[in-house]
Amino acid sequence: MRDERLAAYAELLVGRCARVEAGWQVALFAAPAAEPLVDEVLRLLARRGAYALRRTTWPYEMAWLREAPEELVDALPPIELHTVREIDAVIAIEAPRNTREASDVPPERLAAVRRARRPFLDRISAHEIPWVSCQYPTPALAQDAGMSVEAFEDFLLGACLLDWDALGEEMRGYAARLDEAEEVRIVGAGTDLTLSIAGRRAIVSDGRRNMPDGEFFYAPVEDSAEGTITFGEFPSEQGGRVIRGIRLRFEAGRVVEADAETEAAYLHELLDTDEGARRLGELGIGCNPGITRYLMNTLFDEKMAGTVHLALGNSYTAAGGTNESVIHWDIVKDLRAGGRLYADGELVQEDGRWLV
Amino acid sequence: MRDERLAAYAELLVGRCARVEAGWQVALFAAPAAEPLVDEVLRLLARRGAYALRRTTWPYEMAWLREAPEELVDALPPIELHTVREIDAVIAIEAPRNTREASDVPPERLAAVRRARRPFLDRISAHEIPWVSCQYPTPALAQDAGMSVEAFEDFLLGACLLDWDALGEEMRGYAARLDEAEEVRIVGAGTDLTLSIAGRRAIVSDGRRNMPDGEFFYAPVEDSAEGTITFGEFPSEQGGRVIRGIRLRFEAGRVVEADAETEAAYLHELLDTDEGARRLGELGIGCNPGITRYLMNTLFDEKMAGTVHLALGNSYTAAGGTNESVIHWDIVKDLRAGGRLYADGELVQEDGRWLV
Repeated sequence: MRDERLAAYAELLVGRCARVEAGWQVALFAAPAAEPLVDEVLRLLARRGAYALRRTTWPYEMAWLREAPEELVDALPPIELHTVREIDAVIAIEAPRNTREASDVPPERLAAVRRARRPFLDRISAHEIPWVSCQYPTPALAQDAGMSVEAFEDFLLGACLLDWDALGEEMRGYAARLDEAEEVRIVGAGTDLTLSIAGRRAIVSDGRRNMPDGEFFYAPVEDSAEGTITFGEFPSEQGGRVIRGIRLRFEAGRVVEADAETEAAYLHELLDTDEGARRLGELGIGCNPGITRYLMNTLFDEKMAGTVHLALGNSYTAAGGTNESVIHWDIVKDLRAGGRLYADGELVQEDGRWLV
Repeated sequence: MRDERLAAYAELLVGRCARVEAGWQVALFAAPAAEPLVDEVLRLLARRGAYALRRTTWPYEMAWLREAPEELVDALPPIELHTVREIDAVIAIEAPRNTREASDVPPERLAAVRRARRPFLDRISAHEIPWVSCQYPTPALAQDAGMSVEAFEDFLLGACLLDWDALGEEMRGYAARLDEAEEVRIVGAGTDLTLSIAGRRAIVSDGRRNMPDGEFFYAPVEDSAEGTITFGEFPSEQGGRVIRGIRLRFEAGRVVEADAETEAAYLHELLDTDEGARRLGELGIGCNPGITRYLMNTLFDEKMAGTVHLALGNSYTAAGGTNESVIHWDIVKDLRAGGRLYADGELVQEDGRWLV
């Protein structure tokens, strides 16, 4: 039986986000659990006269990844490389049966996968092709969110089926104020960090590349970060592990001190992935009013109105960024209780509420 | 929890059938329901140092196929065409949730898919790359077989986990007798058909290309079929439809009269697919002792010891065949009750039992 909301969700992905045109070859990355949504997307691709290239957990399945030789994990197979070059759009639907399935894959192996995916990430980071990343409400995602599947479905659709043009307009207002500024300062619990965004302009993400969407973001000037940030409100999940209480101290844009309450060793492994992993690739500002609580699900959490997020690692070249890394790890800081955001010394947001 | 028999099944597919070597790019076509077997196959591909390119229902998903423009259905997308050319081996695991899922797709659309798949079929028909086609025991397949899933699992594994070298030796003995002959005659209920196999040699299929396997087959001389055959014992499933009581009369290799008890109109549509669809592409002789009953599942039924099958349409170029068609439709004739097989006039099989 078909759910009308699912059809609307699919229309958002195919129409607004991927902007699919006739004759396109569209890669559809989706785990089997997403089948009802996949079917809706397939119907819409067919109606637009586009090919659907269905792939499951891309590029590698876990059972293969655990035992394959390192040198194979390290580079996409030539056929997939060709696909990356030729594809016209990407719709990626996460639908995990178990969000910790990667927890017994060695971190260096996950890093190798990230290196292998680089040609793909380069194309989407430069916005060469339309792409969208989203989720289908599986029991595993509901479990991480501490919700029933039905409640998570409602939450997910409530965060996605918005008036994106109106929210885009609102975000462009905030972004215009920050675009004028040279320096952003984030103050909050255990946090006083300044970043330069001089010469950089916001990318306003109004229902295009992620779903849920609803953020605007900058590629900070690479050597500018100074000070400390403590991500004490929310843990961060990465590579199937949960890292709590991350604290980072920056000097001249570089992490020079790092600690965490859990998985501190893993945090250091991630920072040591490559040189770019110690620098910021993104300052993002969450503006989605439908996301009111933390889910341990970055796709949602980083869009939450009243939060900011910093990404360690690769920056978006489309945003003027030059930092290169195989990681791009978004970590979310809640500013709703006592947080402040300054633009060139002027308070622009307090307790997560905009003053401009 | 892992089933040792499933691991043995996977080893058969990867090792004996696909003969996978290090560095290969192996296409793995498998519907989601096959996941436990897919995981075993992925492990073995990883251990052999081969890439796994996982694809679901290839090339097109049904929800797309029902509504896509005709011209797109008619040709593989360029990326898939490239894959077909570059791939080193194919492992295809059928695992339908519903064997009649194609029943509301118009026949001309299914014919278009067959045309689109032609570059792929050409490569495997010429035996350019190792490939194997097999099944995973889903409820839908068990249902068609009139069995519980557990009984069907046992049946499937009993038909696959055989001593293939020993059965190959036995089949090569029968094939040697037929290779010497110029003419084969099939006699049985409503059936008296002669075919020339002069100058053609058997391909003995001893656990390589299909699993279950266990047949040897010829590409009959294209204009040689004369007489009538009635497939009265078993219905034949094609394109999600069940065709009962097929009767075909041949003159000079061509079907000149055709009838069926059910779906007669569809039978005629299939015969009208193209010129080659009215001619025989294959005479196959089933020899698998593990298959003792009809399942309405051609992969099994055509291997049943004591049966023969004729394929309308495309012939295997590797067997010397020259008939071209986008269809290759195997129809099984039971010879176990009153059937006889002659080689140049000599009785070589009676009631499904070999006399040589």
